[in-house]
Amino acid sequence: MIYLDNAATTKPDSAAVERAMVYLNEKFYNPSAVYHSGHALSLELKEARRNILSNIADVNTFELVFTSCGSEADNQAVFSCGRRGNVVTSEGEHSAILSAVAELKNRGIEVRFAPLCSDGSVNVEALLSLVDEKTSLVTVMHVNNETGAINDINAIAKRIKAKYPRVLFHSDGVQAFGKLRYRLSKDVDLYSISAHKIGGLKGTGALIKRKSLVLHPYIYGGGQESGLRSGTENVFGIKTLEYAAAAKYQKLSETYERMAQYNRTVRQGLNGEIFSCISGENASPYILSVAAKGMRGETLLHMLDDAGVMVGTGSACSSNEKKRYSHVILACGYDKTVADGILRISFSADTTEEEVNRAIAVINRVGSELKEKMA
Amino acid sequence: MIYLDNAATTKPDSAAVERAMVYLNEKFYNPSAVYHSGHALSLELKEARRNILSNIADVNTFELVFTSCGSEADNQAVFSCGRRGNVVTSEGEHSAILSAVAELKNRGIEVRFAPLCSDGSVNVEALLSLVDEKTSLVTVMHVNNETGAINDINAIAKRIKAKYPRVLFHSDGVQAFGKLRYRLSKDVDLYSISAHKIGGLKGTGALIKRKSLVLHPYIYGGGQESGLRSGTENVFGIKTLEYAAAAKYQKLSETYERMAQYNRTVRQGLNGEIFSCISGENASPYILSVAAKGMRGETLLHMLDDAGVMVGTGSACSSNEKKRYSHVILACGYDKTVADGILRISFSADTTEEEVNRAIAVINRVGSELKEKMA
Repeated sequence: MIYLDNAATTKPDSAAVERAMVYLNEKFYNPSAVYHSGHALSLELKEARRNILSNIADVNTFELVFTSCGSEADNQAVFSCGRRGNVVTSEGEHSAILSAVAELKNRGIEVRFAPLCSDGSVNVEALLSLVDEKTSLVTVMHVNNETGAINDINAIAKRIKAKYPRVLFHSDGVQAFGKLRYRLSKDVDLYSISAHKIGGLKGTGALIKRKSLVLHPYIYGGGQESGLRSGTENVFGIKTLEYAAAAKYQKLSETYERMAQYNRTVRQGLNGEIFSCISGENASPYILSVAAKGMRGETLLHMLDDAGVMVGTGSACSSNEKKRYSHVILACGYDKTVADGILRISFSADTTEEEVNRAIAVINRVGSELKEKMA
Repeated sequence: MIYLDNAATTKPDSAAVERAMVYLNEKFYNPSAVYHSGHALSLELKEARRNILSNIADVNTFELVFTSCGSEADNQAVFSCGRRGNVVTSEGEHSAILSAVAELKNRGIEVRFAPLCSDGSVNVEALLSLVDEKTSLVTVMHVNNETGAINDINAIAKRIKAKYPRVLFHSDGVQAFGKLRYRLSKDVDLYSISAHKIGGLKGTGALIKRKSLVLHPYIYGGGQESGLRSGTENVFGIKTLEYAAAAKYQKLSETYERMAQYNRTVRQGLNGEIFSCISGENASPYILSVAAKGMRGETLLHMLDDAGVMVGTGSACSSNEKKRYSHVILACGYDKTVADGILRISFSADTTEEEVNRAIAVINRVGSELKEKMA
């Protein structure tokens, strides 16, 4: 089987897992315990926090709160900061943001949605026009999880702050962290990351915040994570994230170039009479969405699965909602006949060139088969 | 080192972890993915849910929502059900409940606290007298995490429901699950459990709920866990919990008897001139709190740590709050000179008789040393 659904989740980095196993087998203590072995773990968590953060931000300006996933980080940002006036976001956000702002709306907060450009990036001018003196929070994802479109979050945040310095800016960075080279500017107040999209484990994420920003807790209790996220720390998951992230950042440019090559190979190799690219040329190379117009993406997906290739249709995270059409693809301006036939091909550092080449052949063959059946 | 702080966290069950490793190495897929390998995982999660639940409840009456920890489960119960009138709880609850109800108070909900009996169990008559037609939620822990006192939650819930059928009843069962033999009655609406207290992993917990009860989501997003808890499922943690719980329930009575023997051995073996038992004779045998009156528990703890024995002072989960005195011990009616000198000794199935005997000798020796120093 060839796994090309790495935007949904990645295979855990076996070296990172092996290195972290000591936190299951020996250093299993509660980091809140005051005896030496417990306290030592709290220091190791502090180090992990700093190491993970330093990959993308200044550790003097930002701090990191461990959460159980990217969705929890998104929820904490939205519910902690979207407490008055209006909240501005985009039509292309992950469901963790869209569902959270829908709940904000239930609580009487006005929610404003900026439209997307055809590649899935946010229409920046339209977004800025929605922000006003009553806006409490703007949340715009860094990399779109369906098209790979990259939003220049530092630039967007800067323009917002220039006009409305008190507005808070959050970004869901789940598909950017460990994949692209960037540094968070001080105009970004909050940033969500997830472990299992970069070789870490499901059940670990983090909310990065500007140090001076006062946040509400999301889980109340024993006061872990400086009181912002109670519950015994998932030491094994956190250390695996630290190690997996270090491995990713060590080879970031090299892997990026390899992904860009895979991306080009697929773009050039897919049968243009069946498949057309939705993702823009300057999108994250890790994600490539293509449309097989007139076909059902889900049918293609199952045929590909039978033929040994696993890909996504839109976001796996949305499959529980039983939505036929991706909200992102529709927001890009495509009609339902296009939105019905979307395949999301997504790579990881584990993906090999040989797998990419084999996958192209299989996708073309399956696409032709389905086309013939429909004729 | 002898580890006797198992109420804070337990060493992961190595057989359970090994069996679950397949979910890191091979079956790492996103359970929301629609191709075969993804969907198969969602069925495995369904099975895990049923297996874990069936240990303590009727699977036709109850259902189980996976969370990231016991604290999250407690928070979801409190914030979802404590939305009007008043909430009744006890003075001995875990900080995940106490901090959550403190936040409820900020939101304008009246919170009423029932006092404890001297063993740490809730004063049931006092609790019942606090419940009235405006009560939305009663939350009382099953086993106190500091004294081991067992509350008869089925009986308490039954008496509440007899008078006020619409009041919801929640219990934090973190220190009961996998340790005591019981079945949840249908009068219990909600019940929290945690994996890492019974050989599972930190980062996994669950909220058990009556099927017909409508709950609010706590993390909004992709709609996992029937929409009640979004975020990619922590498959590895969930399967480890399933296996660890199965192992615990398979040997439940045998282990219980062994813990009861350890408990008696410590009660009889500790120097009565220095240590007196706080925990009642009919408490959970897994937890034994003793007081060294006039001494500081923290000093004793560090001396014991140096001498090779790890124990707790009150709840590890509260150590972040920098509280000198345990709220539980004070609520039991003890004064500060007693509350200052508490040691919590807690066992797990991994604890051996030899460790218990060695620990008694060390605790007595260290207690005498400190007494001499203070003289």
